[in-house]
Amino acid sequence: MGLEVCKAVDAAADLDLVALINQGDSLESASGSGARVLVDFTNPGVVMENLRWAIGQGIHVVVGTSGFTEERLAQVRGWLAEKPGVGVVIAPNFGIGAILMMRFAASAARYFDSVEIIEQHHPRKLDAPSGTAMHTARLIAEARKAANCPPMPDATQEELDGARGTDIDGVRVHAVRAAGLVAHQEVLFGAAGETLTIRHDSLDRSSFMPGVVLAVREVVKRPGLTLGLDELLD
Amino acid sequence: MGLEVCKAVDAAADLDLVALINQGDSLESASGSGARVLVDFTNPGVVMENLRWAIGQGIHVVVGTSGFTEERLAQVRGWLAEKPGVGVVIAPNFGIGAILMMRFAASAARYFDSVEIIEQHHPRKLDAPSGTAMHTARLIAEARKAANCPPMPDATQEELDGARGTDIDGVRVHAVRAAGLVAHQEVLFGAAGETLTIRHDSLDRSSFMPGVVLAVREVVKRPGLTLGLDELLD
Amino acid sequence: MGLEVCKAVDAAADLDLVALINQGDSLESASGSGARVLVDFTNPGVVMENLRWAIGQGIHVVVGTSGFTEERLAQVRGWLAEKPGVGVVIAPNFGIGAILMMRFAASAARYFDSVEIIEQHHPRKLDAPSGTAMHTARLIAEARKAANCPPMPDATQEELDGARGTDIDGVRVHAVRAAGLVAHQEVLFGAAGETLTIRHDSLDRSSFMPGVVLAVREVVKRPGLTLGLDELLD
Amino acid sequence: MGLEVCKAVDAAADLDLVALINQGDSLESASGSGARVLVDFTNPGVVMENLRWAIGQGIHVVVGTSGFTEERLAQVRGWLAEKPGVGVVIAPNFGIGAILMMRFAASAARYFDSVEIIEQHHPRKLDAPSGTAMHTARLIAEARKAANCPPMPDATQEELDGARGTDIDGVRVHAVRAAGLVAHQEVLFGAAGETLTIRHDSLDRSSFMPGVVLAVREVVKRPGLTLGLDELLD
Repeated sequence: MGLEVCKAVDAAADLDLVALINQGDSLESASGSGARVLVDFTNPGVVMENLRWAIGQGIHVVVGTSGFTEERLAQVRGWLAEKPGVGVVIAPNFGIGAILMMRFAASAARYFDSVEIIEQHHPRKLDAPSGTAMHTARLIAEARKAANCPPMPDATQEELDGARGTDIDGVRVHAVRAAGLVAHQEVLFGAAGETLTIRHDSLDRSSFMPGVVLAVREVVKRPGLTLGLDELLD
Repeated sequence: MGLEVCKAVDAAADLDLVALINQGDSLESASGSGARVLVDFTNPGVVMENLRWAIGQGIHVVVGTSGFTEERLAQVRGWLAEKPGVGVVIAPNFGIGAILMMRFAASAARYFDSVEIIEQHHPRKLDAPSGTAMHTARLIAEARKAANCPPMPDATQEELDGARGTDIDGVRVHAVRAAGLVAHQEVLFGAAGETLTIRHDSLDRSSFMPGVVLAVREVVKRPGLTLGLDELLD
Repeated sequence: MGLEVCKAVDAAADLDLVALINQGDSLESASGSGARVLVDFTNPGVVMENLRWAIGQGIHVVVGTSGFTEERLAQVRGWLAEKPGVGVVIAPNFGIGAILMMRFAASAARYFDSVEIIEQHHPRKLDAPSGTAMHTARLIAEARKAANCPPMPDATQEELDGARGTDIDGVRVHAVRAAGLVAHQEVLFGAAGETLTIRHDSLDRSSFMPGVVLAVREVVKRPGLTLGLDELLD
Repeated sequence: MGLEVCKAVDAAADLDLVALINQGDSLESASGSGARVLVDFTNPGVVMENLRWAIGQGIHVVVGTSGFTEERLAQVRGWLAEKPGVGVVIAPNFGIGAILMMRFAASAARYFDSVEIIEQHHPRKLDAPSGTAMHTARLIAEARKAANCPPMPDATQEELDGARGTDIDGVRVHAVRAAGLVAHQEVLFGAAGETLTIRHDSLDRSSFMPGVVLAVREVVKRPGLTLGLDELLD
């Protein structure tokens, strides 16, 4: 992932790659190189130390590492409070397509009688449904609750066990697993006489790079902590 | 349905509509009109009497009425044995698209590691999954068994109840219900690096008419009993 | 269309249908009935007179009639200036799904390298591409221009005439015509490793009714002229 | 490609990989290893010599190399005539999904009023439409001609240049090019009230391996020359 980030930054005409820090390398090479932004795809064991150091140096940080609890976020906010010009973006997902899919789904949810989610993944996946599908379902459920939408129509009386999928806060989610698939999700909205479908197909992690590059560009303009890529997409 | 059949026959350049028999009308009007083929979309209570009469008159019959048990079929075969030139086609489904979908699905089944079915219907439907989806799943399972296909790969360990759909003879089936849908089915085949999808969308019962017209054309060339439209599609 | 509107208003729990005005009927029956909102699906020849009368009576108006030039809109604004509490909504399209599709497409346009539109309609349609597809393409082109997006990548050197569709402000649009289709549109966005697809399927004009009902509810809260349903969807 | 073939053969429980011949290696290593089948993914400059040699040795051959003219095929048939037990399979495409797509498309073509093809590829592709799309269109056109199908309905009067795609023997083909795509094709069939869609998505060349393995298994049972994988799929 680190190498892909370096390639993506290097390929962006308005960005310069000034340092490449491998596991075991000292962070000092970053400050020596005049880096304005540090991109951290490391692991939960070292990310906090990296953040503390970079913020202390006045270097902005884009973080794709996982494992951020409320305690950790509070700690980062504390460090940032002492360096008011510095920005940190922490995002669980840098895929712009997936983020737009969720945003559009939440936005459309209140205008349709029915919504269902069909996610499709390779058969080596351990969980069903996917985390993204569950997150999407919850966003939809919240939006419908806020708009006082009635329950979705469903006259099913005879159901073979599992045929109607799993129910997440009132939204049905179906998980397909098949060879040849990578990571796909479809959100289907229906009202009298029409359907609206939002579908995201992800083929490989190169799809995260535009999101990383966007975050690098934006973090320098956003002092303080920004959670999630969503806010950076206006 | 009867009226739609009349319109479809009337619209076919090579066919003539010579009689229109409503509930309560006598079948004699059919023989008086010189009809060569009788199309029967009636009900299980009268269809056997209609068949007995038509075969006796040497009139070919296309039947879309339901309720044919093995006993009834044996009875029809008995009547036909005495009239060797007469043909009868009895079909549960005259939708050519649905029939081709099932045929292609059965034919492709052995060549892929994975197969799943996603059917989508209006929310007034009482059963899930649909009869067509269950029938398709069984055809696929039979084809895979005959070719000694191994079980499909699926590493799912944590599943929310129902997320992976229902299991019909080893084939996962997912039933979506939403306003704005009519009757749709997708069969997804997957192997390393590729997927093949066969999808049928049915919007209204006019979709049955080409199948009825085809059966009218073919029944005159096929003495004896033909079950299902599948055989008429070569 | 008028009858469908009456059914939809009648079916909405929070709205009352108080009058039904056919061609030739006097508008006075509307004022006599205590109507607060007039819905006008008439024709360009009479709609201006209806608007003038309703605004004068202090009745809000929802208009689905076509033919509004800049002159006509200026005239309506003039009438409304004299009745500051009255609202008028004029919309060329009341399909919420189609409007959301266009809104989402415009919003996603700047984040992807490529965008193409595939619209699919019944074969009796006279124009290709559809007005909705052309409008969507223009919205996408504007959004990309505003964000300084580079031209889309396309290495095509040998093209059979028309294979790559038509070019509308730099956005390729493909028009499919086939029996069995009604009105469908797909907007495909692509970036490295991922695609995002927004698809709208419209089966019949009942799909316009939720938009009409929404406009009836909203027009009473929005004095002055509102153009398009888009603003009513927040 | 050669390496992927080796991996695929090695992974098949019923096949043994006995030799691996790189560019510059002598073919003798194949005969010394007791190979029963030679798989040739080389180039037009050497493939004929390889075939001559293998057939002479009584080794069956599966060929994925391109450039086979009628003269070359006649030459291969000549060599095979002298070795009646030896089989050769020469195929331009080993993707089972693509081959089934074409087969199903040809088989369905006569039963629908309308057929159109939408192919979608990455934007580095030089030609539009793809060779597979053109081949599919021709198969469809032939099938419709053989069944005396009338021209497809299309009332288009006002068309922006290219909107309706390119016309290949009466079948409209649309070529979409976008980042994030790999190689995809959709064949859409339509009749009154229904559509049938056959879609193939290919993500990488691992999708060719099941076809190669199938050919290796089948070539030993089929003396003489077999052209195309289609015949091996019964």
